[in-house]
Amino acid sequence: MLKTDGESLLFAVDLAGTLLFAIEGGSAAASGQLDLLGVMVLAFATAVGGGIIRDLLIGAVPPASLRDWRYAALAFFGGFLVFFLHRYVNGIPLVVVLVLDAAGLSLFAIAGTEKALLYKMPSLVAILLGTITAVGGGVLRDIFLARVPRLLQSDIYATAAIVGSVVMIIAGKLGLSVRWAAISGGVVCFLLRLLSLWLHWNLPRMGR
Amino acid sequence: MLKTDGESLLFAVDLAGTLLFAIEGGSAAASGQLDLLGVMVLAFATAVGGGIIRDLLIGAVPPASLRDWRYAALAFFGGFLVFFLHRYVNGIPLVVVLVLDAAGLSLFAIAGTEKALLYKMPSLVAILLGTITAVGGGVLRDIFLARVPRLLQSDIYATAAIVGSVVMIIAGKLGLSVRWAAISGGVVCFLLRLLSLWLHWNLPRMGR
Amino acid sequence: MLKTDGESLLFAVDLAGTLLFAIEGGSAAASGQLDLLGVMVLAFATAVGGGIIRDLLIGAVPPASLRDWRYAALAFFGGFLVFFLHRYVNGIPLVVVLVLDAAGLSLFAIAGTEKALLYKMPSLVAILLGTITAVGGGVLRDIFLARVPRLLQSDIYATAAIVGSVVMIIAGKLGLSVRWAAISGGVVCFLLRLLSLWLHWNLPRMGR
Repeated sequence: MLKTDGESLLFAVDLAGTLLFAIEGGSAAASGQLDLLGVMVLAFATAVGGGIIRDLLIGAVPPASLRDWRYAALAFFGGFLVFFLHRYVNGIPLVVVLVLDAAGLSLFAIAGTEKALLYKMPSLVAILLGTITAVGGGVLRDIFLARVPRLLQSDIYATAAIVGSVVMIIAGKLGLSVRWAAISGGVVCFLLRLLSLWLHWNLPRMGR
Repeated sequence: MLKTDGESLLFAVDLAGTLLFAIEGGSAAASGQLDLLGVMVLAFATAVGGGIIRDLLIGAVPPASLRDWRYAALAFFGGFLVFFLHRYVNGIPLVVVLVLDAAGLSLFAIAGTEKALLYKMPSLVAILLGTITAVGGGVLRDIFLARVPRLLQSDIYATAAIVGSVVMIIAGKLGLSVRWAAISGGVVCFLLRLLSLWLHWNLPRMGR
Repeated sequence: MLKTDGESLLFAVDLAGTLLFAIEGGSAAASGQLDLLGVMVLAFATAVGGGIIRDLLIGAVPPASLRDWRYAALAFFGGFLVFFLHRYVNGIPLVVVLVLDAAGLSLFAIAGTEKALLYKMPSLVAILLGTITAVGGGVLRDIFLARVPRLLQSDIYATAAIVGSVVMIIAGKLGLSVRWAAISGGVVCFLLRLLSLWLHWNLPRMGR
């Protein structure tokens, strides 16, 4: 495994996902009657919350998103976009939002899995950390909005991240390079998420 | 203090408490209209959340429950039991649930206190960390369900963990071995919890 | 920069802010129907929560407020004051509460910024960490009470902490000593908070 290869890949996908998730997090603030500060906090928490939880858990402190000012800058830029251009942001067709969100989910899942592997975590834990990276920010956002995190109730969302992370790890064990293992996992996560939306797939609910 | 004695004791009680709390956490998911993923997340968070918070606070990262795959496996096994056998789980008499929960509470309180002492924390902090280990997972579960943590409102629950932890530390200072100090603290916590349920003891509420 | 100067300043303002915030956190418990334990937990979380999050993020574990028993003792003392003297605490005029809260906010913002600088964080991150130290405990309190954190919705509260932290960092870059930079930042934060209350300033809300 080429460490530099993994690390530069990690950085690029992290930044792309950060902006995507910041825009989404800021948009969610509309439902909570938040002010400009609230929008910024939600954009920041959604964008970098998952990565910060992952970094705290593997002991990579200070977290990457605090050590490098570009994460915070991108997250706040996303928040500003939402706040000042919300008419345009609201006008974006839902399908575009869902596709971009699926892309962010996939990027974060593979970035999180990759970082856990760089820190020599066992496979099961790398899957867990990849998933936490992908969905942790959204869970934090929902906690700030005092509502049950959506992903615990419906949709194939965290599940797509889990599957993508599993595919990435298996591909790595089968001998694929870091880059191709990550691409395989990301594509599977992305397609599974979109397919599940299109076909209205849900996990079974708990019977009563 | 025999370190190996303390550490092996810690491991055994941790695993037993993990399964107990996972089953309980998964069961709580029924009230939140969660799907299979939600049940798994609640089982995991309830089972290992308290220990993870403790480990983050004392700087033992990655947390024990992420380094050893058996914690996650037990937690998810507990979640599966609840999800697929919920008719049977729901049929368990309340008294059995309460007794098992009191056992889990006691196991985690002494495991948390013991680990804090192994990390050379002062007594007051060891009591705090023992209590956080015991009740932290339940608090996380309630936060995920967007409700005020029950233990902040009524019952002798965290209080029993505090008293058990205090007894364990005093017993240790009086010269008892790690094992016997832990057993003393655990038994006191367990009995106090059950006694308070039986006699409907509550802490005073804030007057208005 | 005299490190000892900064550190002793940090310690003094931290203790003063801890007691102020504990009293406030405990008072907030009245709205959540909490018992004695709940009041203690809210006093503790509000008082030391922000500092603990800051310490976890910069890797200063165990957090200062767990290593030194005086933080916990002060926090619980504040909780006891509220619980047993709540008639008198409730009788304190609102203006006094608001002024004391503004003082606590300022103390924590500069203490958090100072500690982040001692740990060699870049300026943007020091501002973020100063603000988290100042408002993190209040956010934790609101999460425990299952409500959307107030500071995300209205008031110049976190914003005052941000501005105070920015002033402190600029003053330091302009060559002021740690002590005077901190005092400048704290005074600006304090006055901005009170001025905004007096003049009913709010940040813009997100349009709909």
